[in-house]
Amino acid sequence: MTKKIFPSWIAVDWGTSNLRLWAMDDTANILGSAESPLGMNAIAGDPKLSFEAVLIDLIEDWLGADPAKLPVVICGMAGAKQGWIEAPYCDVPARPSDLAKGAVTPNVSDPRISVFILPGLCQRGDPDVMRGEETQLVGFMAQNPDFSGWVCLPGTHSKWAQVGDGMIKAFRTYMSGEVFALLSQQSILRHSVDDGWDNAAFADAVRTASEQPTAFLHSLFTVRAGALVAKGDASVAPGAAVLSGTVIGAEIADVLSRLAPGDDIALIGAGKLASLYQAALAVHNHKATPKDGAAITLAGLSRAYGVVTG
Amino acid sequence: MTKKIFPSWIAVDWGTSNLRLWAMDDTANILGSAESPLGMNAIAGDPKLSFEAVLIDLIEDWLGADPAKLPVVICGMAGAKQGWIEAPYCDVPARPSDLAKGAVTPNVSDPRISVFILPGLCQRGDPDVMRGEETQLVGFMAQNPDFSGWVCLPGTHSKWAQVGDGMIKAFRTYMSGEVFALLSQQSILRHSVDDGWDNAAFADAVRTASEQPTAFLHSLFTVRAGALVAKGDASVAPGAAVLSGTVIGAEIADVLSRLAPGDDIALIGAGKLASLYQAALAVHNHKATPKDGAAITLAGLSRAYGVVTG
Repeated sequence: MTKKIFPSWIAVDWGTSNLRLWAMDDTANILGSAESPLGMNAIAGDPKLSFEAVLIDLIEDWLGADPAKLPVVICGMAGAKQGWIEAPYCDVPARPSDLAKGAVTPNVSDPRISVFILPGLCQRGDPDVMRGEETQLVGFMAQNPDFSGWVCLPGTHSKWAQVGDGMIKAFRTYMSGEVFALLSQQSILRHSVDDGWDNAAFADAVRTASEQPTAFLHSLFTVRAGALVAKGDASVAPGAAVLSGTVIGAEIADVLSRLAPGDDIALIGAGKLASLYQAALAVHNHKATPKDGAAITLAGLSRAYGVVTG
Repeated sequence: MTKKIFPSWIAVDWGTSNLRLWAMDDTANILGSAESPLGMNAIAGDPKLSFEAVLIDLIEDWLGADPAKLPVVICGMAGAKQGWIEAPYCDVPARPSDLAKGAVTPNVSDPRISVFILPGLCQRGDPDVMRGEETQLVGFMAQNPDFSGWVCLPGTHSKWAQVGDGMIKAFRTYMSGEVFALLSQQSILRHSVDDGWDNAAFADAVRTASEQPTAFLHSLFTVRAGALVAKGDASVAPGAAVLSGTVIGAEIADVLSRLAPGDDIALIGAGKLASLYQAALAVHNHKATPKDGAAITLAGLSRAYGVVTG
């Protein structure tokens, strides 16, 4: 028998392909949590599913007889055009309070909850968008109020945000993760990518990407040509390490060219991918220890909860 | 009833996915031609097929009772490791005669032909390889003996070769065609790419690629973000033009950074792709009129024929 819990509010990170939620008390303690594969795409693709029904199903046990509505604060794709209700993008530069104030409240039929969906961020000059990562940035800023520089969120489409003076000032998305996946699985380079790995080859590729900034589309082909040209038993650098270093290195070379004196770098993420970014940054003598993304998302949702219910 | 022809030799361009051949007389006239989908991959994938049988089947009508063996000169993937017989790469710098002298002769069971398979080119310092394009370069050099500069051969993996002093000095392969295909058909950008086109948007993207040489992986994402960020009825540049200009522009920016004073640029190819390269070069004030690739291949094979049978 599980012990009945009575959260003060629910924090939700509703992504494209899954969702995670946490039952929170008023002093930022996690009382319970849940996960589901019913991300935006699954709900948008099935007329029998609705965002409200999926949510209620996951939090039903936590809903008490309390007549006050339980606040549910959501970030991510629930606010996209194809989501629950569109939460129009906030423009950069943006303060955390701007984002929280941009929350929209969908009509819900269940009288026990009130729902707040946070907006994403957009940038008009150099066009760019994010949904979900802005809440991680808010959480990071709550934990590191004096930070000034660039925050990296690696992923399929990795994001780098310029943060300082209590604002998210600008950001840049890089298609590195998706480009790596397509090249390593579907291009001619797939014949050169296997389980082999070599840290020095990765670091070399990161260095080359920075020294030859225009050569990206050519450097990719050397992943294959290197093996064809090697004579006899000459050792060939593992393709996965060279390709990964070439792609991540190209991204990092671009960001570093934009760094102002005194800018810090922070890295949010976990696992293999975050370690690769850490190693690539180390090649350029930047030290960045990955910070856990889930805790930072929760810090960002907590900050928004304080505003929307304040 | 077709008129019986008696060629002096056969020219063959045997590629990965098809082959083309020509019946030639001794004064470079084309007496007949044939095409087949039986490229290297089809033959390597079917144990019932052999290179010799495929070839004889296509040229049977041209084989007379003349006791002298008919020379067949072949360039392309027939000389790859998975081809008819491996023709080891020639190293750059290479003269056309070096390539012709590197031809290998497979054993053939049919007494009526003698076969010469030309080698590809390889480059060891900055590893790179080509098979087939080197014969186009030889043909181009035969037609333009005083040319000094870079020759562009657009394609899935486009090649740029540095040519001068009667030699192919160096070359660079760019994965532009394959990267464009993967991104426009399989990445998130496929939602932003349709039949729409705009020459000015293409030229703008080419210019941006040159002005922001490190930004490639970010510029890709703006193809999508541009549409999401545009408000209301603001016109959005067609994704295909922006993506194509970003990819081809990145390639050309890299080549132009390597140009020495006085270097010319030549473009070999036909159709839409060659026109795009021509337009991208025009953005940088380089005039290059596409030259027909098939005629140049034939000129290169003719040059090799003169050497191997000389």
